[in-house]
Amino acid sequence: MKHVTPLTVRPYECDSYGHVNHAVYVNYLEHARMQFLHALGFDYKGLVAAGFFTVISRLDISYRSPAFADDELAIETEPAEMRRVSGLFHQVIRRGEAVIAQADIHWCVVDGNGRPARPPEAYDLRRLAP
Amino acid sequence: MKHVTPLTVRPYECDSYGHVNHAVYVNYLEHARMQFLHALGFDYKGLVAAGFFTVISRLDISYRSPAFADDELAIETEPAEMRRVSGLFHQVIRRGEAVIAQADIHWCVVDGNGRPARPPEAYDLRRLAP
Amino acid sequence: MKHVTPLTVRPYECDSYGHVNHAVYVNYLEHARMQFLHALGFDYKGLVAAGFFTVISRLDISYRSPAFADDELAIETEPAEMRRVSGLFHQVIRRGEAVIAQADIHWCVVDGNGRPARPPEAYDLRRLAP
Amino acid sequence: MKHVTPLTVRPYECDSYGHVNHAVYVNYLEHARMQFLHALGFDYKGLVAAGFFTVISRLDISYRSPAFADDELAIETEPAEMRRVSGLFHQVIRRGEAVIAQADIHWCVVDGNGRPARPPEAYDLRRLAP
Repeated sequence: MKHVTPLTVRPYECDSYGHVNHAVYVNYLEHARMQFLHALGFDYKGLVAAGFFTVISRLDISYRSPAFADDELAIETEPAEMRRVSGLFHQVIRRGEAVIAQADIHWCVVDGNGRPARPPEAYDLRRLAP
Repeated sequence: MKHVTPLTVRPYECDSYGHVNHAVYVNYLEHARMQFLHALGFDYKGLVAAGFFTVISRLDISYRSPAFADDELAIETEPAEMRRVSGLFHQVIRRGEAVIAQADIHWCVVDGNGRPARPPEAYDLRRLAP
Repeated sequence: MKHVTPLTVRPYECDSYGHVNHAVYVNYLEHARMQFLHALGFDYKGLVAAGFFTVISRLDISYRSPAFADDELAIETEPAEMRRVSGLFHQVIRRGEAVIAQADIHWCVVDGNGRPARPPEAYDLRRLAP
Repeated sequence: MKHVTPLTVRPYECDSYGHVNHAVYVNYLEHARMQFLHALGFDYKGLVAAGFFTVISRLDISYRSPAFADDELAIETEPAEMRRVSGLFHQVIRRGEAVIAQADIHWCVVDGNGRPARPPEAYDLRRLAP
C-alpha cells in the first residue's frame, strides 16, 4: 500500500543555492502524510476534536539529489509499522525515477498534555497497516 | 514611543536571489510587534486565554532595499492609532541608516468566532497609544 | 485576462490559531504570479539567465476572512498595469465565493545590482497587458 | 568544543497545536551551525565565492518535548567528525535542562555541480574538529 502525492516546487521554497531548502522537505512529507490519511478516509479533525493528536517523535531523512523551482515531484508514503499509539512511515520523494530524498518518520498519538495515549477505537491507525 | 527589535537574518530566510524573501519580512514585523507588546507588559497570552485575539486586517509594505544573510537589522515599531477594537502600527526595517522596508499594519481584536469584538478592559490596547 | 491558480492549504501553513498565517498568503500570491507567467509562456528562467529579475516594490494586502487546513482556494491573478520596467497585479484569494484576501502587487525589473532596468525585448512584460 | 546559540521562539514558528512546527527545528539547527562557523572565524561566504558549498546529506532528529512561542532555547552544536569533504555535527536544542530535540547532521562539501568535492585548503573544515 503506497500512496503518492504529486507536488510542484514553489519558487519561495528554494534557498539561496536555488535548491529546495532541506527543511522544506520536512513540510512536504507532512503534507503527503495528511493526503495519505485523507485518501484513506481517516478523520484527522475528529481525532483532534476528541482531544488527541499525532506528533513526530523521530525523523531520519537522507537527501539524495537537489530539487528546483517548478520541479514536479511525487511523494510516496507507505505505512511500515502501525501500532495503537505509535508507528512508522517510509516516504520517498522522487522526480521521475530520481530519488530526491527518503525518510523514516516515527509518529506517536498524544493527548492534550502531550503524553502518549491510546486514541478512541474509531481513530485506531492500525487499520491503515499494510 | 518607538520600540526597536534587533534581528539577524538567518540563512534559510533568503531565497534563490540570496535576498531575504519578501514574505519573510511579514514574519519579522509580527515578531517585532510581539516584542513591542512584551516590552510594554501587555499580557497577550492572557488576551488569548480570555477568548480573544488580534488579527491583521490590512498590511501595506514597501520594499526599499534588499537584505542578506547575517545582516543585522533593526525593526522600529510605533503605534500610530490605537482604538478599543482596532488600530494601526507603523513599522520600519533598517540596516544601519538604510531603510529595507516600511509598513502600515492595521489590526483588529476578534472573538473566538473571528468577529471584531471589544476585549476586556485589562487588554485595552489604547493604553499603548502615543 | 484573469488567471486562476487552484491551491489546497497545507497543515504546516496554519499558525497557532489554526488559520493560515498572514505571511503565508504572500507566498501563495508569488506562487500564483509564477503560474500566471508560466501559463502565458513567459520564460522567467530566461530573464534570470539574461541577468535580470523581478522584485516586489510594494504589496498592499487586505485580509477578509480566515482560511484553514485543507481549504481549497483559488487565486485570481490579473495584470492591471504592465510597463517596460514595472507594473501592477491585482490578486484575489477566494474559497468558493468568499474573499479570503485581496492584494495589489507592484513589481519592477532589476538588473544584477538590484537597480531598475529595462529587460531585453523578449522579456517585455507589456505583452502580458490586458 | 561545544558552541551554544541562544534563540527565542517567534510566534509564527508555531503551528496549529501551538507548538514549534517540527520542520522549524531544522531551520534552527542550520542557523546554529552557521553561528558556530562564524564564531570560529570560518569564512563561509568565501567558500561559496570559491565555487563550493555545503549540503546536508542526512539528518536524524528526535523530538523529545514541545517548545512554545517566546520560549528561550539554547542550541548546542558540536562537531563530531570533520573530514575534508564531509562530516557530522551533533546538535541539541534545550530549554533550560529539558531537551527539546537532538539531531545528527551529516554534511558534505560539493562543487557548483552538486558533486562532492575537496574545497581549497583555506576552507578545510577539519581544523574545526575537536
